[in-house]
Amino acid sequence: MTRFMDVHRGLKGITAEQLKAAHQADQEIEGDEGVHFERAWADPDSGIVYCLSEAPSADAVQRVHDRAGHPADEIHPLPLVV
Amino acid sequence: MTRFMDVHRGLKGITAEQLKAAHQADQEIEGDEGVHFERAWADPDSGIVYCLSEAPSADAVQRVHDRAGHPADEIHPLPLVV
Repeated sequence: MTRFMDVHRGLKGITAEQLKAAHQADQEIEGDEGVHFERAWADPDSGIVYCLSEAPSADAVQRVHDRAGHPADEIHPLPLVV
Repeated sequence: MTRFMDVHRGLKGITAEQLKAAHQADQEIEGDEGVHFERAWADPDSGIVYCLSEAPSADAVQRVHDRAGHPADEIHPLPLVV
């Protein structure tokens, strides 16, 4: 398992409710891909959303996001943490 | 206090020791600006580093990173979290 940060752009005006619903949609199906989405953060002004996950691969992260209806624009493995 | 994610690029090959040293350099002076850096993640292959902080402003985050010798390329407030 590897830690990943994925980035979504273009979500200006996203609300707390929308972020929560999107995160729940991911979590409902994440087990199918062996992914766990730990946390998500959003900035409604710039429209950027970051999601932190543990997953077997970036492709697995994207498959969950795709099926939930919100594909990521970038996915970065993060082997180093402090 | 607001949560911020800042992004550093161009750090290909960054090591665990370099990430730790950079994070410690921030933490040694963060109190001067009322900032707290909570966590940092890095991908040596793409050279991207993410730092999560609580701070009074994006400018305060950047002043700490500037003084520590590693200005951020982007700083995003993250008022929403799930």
